[in-house]
Amino acid sequence: MSDTTATLDPDVIPLEDHEALDEDYVLTASFVEKVVDASDDGDGMRLRSLLEDLHPADVADLMGFLTAEHRAVVVLWLPPELLADTLPELDDSIREEVLERVPHLTLAEALQELDSDDAAAVVEDLEDDQREKVLSAMPAPDRAAIESSLGYAEDSAGRMMQREFMAAPAFWNVGDTIDHVRNQGDDLPELFFDIYVVDPMNKPIGGLPISRLLRASRDAKLTDLMEPINEIAVDQDQEEVAYIFEKYHLISAPVIDAGGRLVGQITVDDIVNIIQEENREDILRLAGVSDEDRGSSVSEIVRGRVPWLTINLGTAVLGAMVISWFEATIQEIVALAILMPIVSAIGGNAGTQALTVTVRALATRELNSSNATRTFFRELRVGLANGFVLAPLIGVAAGLWAQDWRLGMVIGSAMVLNLLVAASVGTLTPVTLSKLKFDPAVSSAVFVTATTDFFGFLIFLGLAKIVLT
Amino acid sequence: MSDTTATLDPDVIPLEDHEALDEDYVLTASFVEKVVDASDDGDGMRLRSLLEDLHPADVADLMGFLTAEHRAVVVLWLPPELLADTLPELDDSIREEVLERVPHLTLAEALQELDSDDAAAVVEDLEDDQREKVLSAMPAPDRAAIESSLGYAEDSAGRMMQREFMAAPAFWNVGDTIDHVRNQGDDLPELFFDIYVVDPMNKPIGGLPISRLLRASRDAKLTDLMEPINEIAVDQDQEEVAYIFEKYHLISAPVIDAGGRLVGQITVDDIVNIIQEENREDILRLAGVSDEDRGSSVSEIVRGRVPWLTINLGTAVLGAMVISWFEATIQEIVALAILMPIVSAIGGNAGTQALTVTVRALATRELNSSNATRTFFRELRVGLANGFVLAPLIGVAAGLWAQDWRLGMVIGSAMVLNLLVAASVGTLTPVTLSKLKFDPAVSSAVFVTATTDFFGFLIFLGLAKIVLT
Repeated sequence: MSDTTATLDPDVIPLEDHEALDEDYVLTASFVEKVVDASDDGDGMRLRSLLEDLHPADVADLMGFLTAEHRAVVVLWLPPELLADTLPELDDSIREEVLERVPHLTLAEALQELDSDDAAAVVEDLEDDQREKVLSAMPAPDRAAIESSLGYAEDSAGRMMQREFMAAPAFWNVGDTIDHVRNQGDDLPELFFDIYVVDPMNKPIGGLPISRLLRASRDAKLTDLMEPINEIAVDQDQEEVAYIFEKYHLISAPVIDAGGRLVGQITVDDIVNIIQEENREDILRLAGVSDEDRGSSVSEIVRGRVPWLTINLGTAVLGAMVISWFEATIQEIVALAILMPIVSAIGGNAGTQALTVTVRALATRELNSSNATRTFFRELRVGLANGFVLAPLIGVAAGLWAQDWRLGMVIGSAMVLNLLVAASVGTLTPVTLSKLKFDPAVSSAVFVTATTDFFGFLIFLGLAKIVLT
Repeated sequence: MSDTTATLDPDVIPLEDHEALDEDYVLTASFVEKVVDASDDGDGMRLRSLLEDLHPADVADLMGFLTAEHRAVVVLWLPPELLADTLPELDDSIREEVLERVPHLTLAEALQELDSDDAAAVVEDLEDDQREKVLSAMPAPDRAAIESSLGYAEDSAGRMMQREFMAAPAFWNVGDTIDHVRNQGDDLPELFFDIYVVDPMNKPIGGLPISRLLRASRDAKLTDLMEPINEIAVDQDQEEVAYIFEKYHLISAPVIDAGGRLVGQITVDDIVNIIQEENREDILRLAGVSDEDRGSSVSEIVRGRVPWLTINLGTAVLGAMVISWFEATIQEIVALAILMPIVSAIGGNAGTQALTVTVRALATRELNSSNATRTFFRELRVGLANGFVLAPLIGVAAGLWAQDWRLGMVIGSAMVLNLLVAASVGTLTPVTLSKLKFDPAVSSAVFVTATTDFFGFLIFLGLAKIVLT
């Protein structure tokens, strides 16, 4: 499975060849192998020399490729600052595991190095008793920032935002602003991209990218340079925040409290993570998988997948029930038992196509009440057209095989009707769930295939019973 | 389907209430309705007043909610600059349709307003003859920039990058740099976030965010402030570029040619689009849907979906063939026909779970040769555990229903075995496709369910024949 050069003794390879990353910035299998070997040998010095020059994102990536045993050794030998920067980058399940191994004083120190949003994200994952120990070991202002961040709902803008931002009063000019940044730099976030112009009540009235500030003359007034900005409410859901960033190509945006006052900022690098997380959720939920990642144990994975398979077992039994209604017909014409899975399979797949397209369109806000009816009828026409292509194929094949053109007619008609069922249920299920404020991806797939199975068997066997017996 | 207030005469509503967007920056159904009404009435002045204050992204969004007929009227009345900015934001199929309606001189003028990457993206969508007309109506430098951009492979960094960037020679200090931006601002991109420091050969040797430039004193040397940067090769695939941005939280990155010289930059706002596009492709391909969007016609959609359904028809016939081998057994025990879809359905769903998790892990580079074997065996253990939960459920139920404990044993054993098949094929299919440099999402699902159907029927009916007859 592995194309590494693990058989070579790593000590005889010159250091230049110990490249951790290939040209696409992906960790090489041979580097992972070296870390594994060093952990197995308990060679801490060698581990540290392999790890110390890595970017925190690469350390996090590396952890994902290791087993829990090897991770335990690696955590022991990571330089403390690198450990701090790595924590926010880790997969959830791995972070929880790593956090259990780090002494709470080390952790309290590490967290002070991080931005408030990153620190809060780490603290969130701590067990209750560990969380108290860590927080009480931190200086009061850092502790307060983290506690206030955790006071906002999970997945809200308040939880995502960092409290550090660059605001300027409306009466400043470019020169004032540059001087302020140069003198007060320590209170500002390490990176910022936009300057928010605020009124005396601390409400944002506009903003400008720093590149525009640089380009203007020192005596230009900020109010002449600024443009309207997209404000984010502190209780807005992260998915909506991501939508706004994506739609308007934002790099950063100010977050305001219920009174309209500036309380933080969100930057696009956090948005990229949110978008990936939301996409991951959609794609996995459509397949009936709860949240799991490469660090999840077998029992965690099974607990996430078995409920959906069990529901599926129930719906499959419903389908079997439909078949049992036609027991006598099947006994008479065994060909029906042979052909019936074809009708249900195609229905299930066409339904999944319609479902997936609809879930995606809802997620990207391309579908709402102004085009839902049109989309539904378009899917029905697609279903009908699919039927007119596929029904003759299977009808003729089945008719020839069974030497009975009526059986061909029955399976062809059943196919067309079930494709219409598939189009309807594939579109209406997610639209309805979304109207009822449920996630349209969750449990849609099981309902769609259950419906196409149910009607596939019912229509095919029902028609057959009428026409053929 | 629509919750609009379309029955009210829009003319008697005060303008303040004509809000186009709700608080989440989503177009309201009532605003879309107003645009539709104005188009139906051919009321150009009213259309213009509705549209002129919209952000280009909102105009593009609006277009997606309209029918082709309404879009034709709207394009006619869009102010030219707004039309130019809207073009890069449109869905592909809608852009193609709109471009056919815009006179080539208007288009040539509009394109000069855009950044080189956006202009190239629009020109790319033109028919050959229209493309020539439009390009020949543009000034030579603009034409050259677009043609050189189109010279790079589709989906490459060269095609994505903009040619405008901010580079500074290594001997400059902060003051030199700020003065340069202030004086030469017109040659610089409208927005930039990082300054690339280059050597005399124009090769990037480091970079710094502008916020760090602002914070430093005027006499600080750039080489003391800069940090190593992630360079993007001009021929790198956009998916790899997106991975690098996401992993290292980049806001912008320099693009270098084969000689290592700086030729352009890529900014994170383009990356957000790429990530959405790649995710969209993955989720749709897993469901067997080729590229389609809300502007696609029924026949375009059918052409994209029917091939997959046809392949699926073929594999369903294979499954039917397996069943036909056991015709005599089924005739003897009709209960087998009733129960067999349960075994294949659960296998198909479990296989899809394993497949989706694997495709996702490959897409996010969480799975490679260093953990593929481990992942495979973890999935096998998950399959076995799923089986030990589900097999007793269905075994006892089927045994009681058929009054035959041997039938319960048969379906339970078949379930466990088919779940192992599902785990194997769900993992190995995408991993193998990916090793062979194919997209692991394409046609994986059809192969996985075909395999679980085939073996589901074979194992269940085969065991039944041995044990029960």
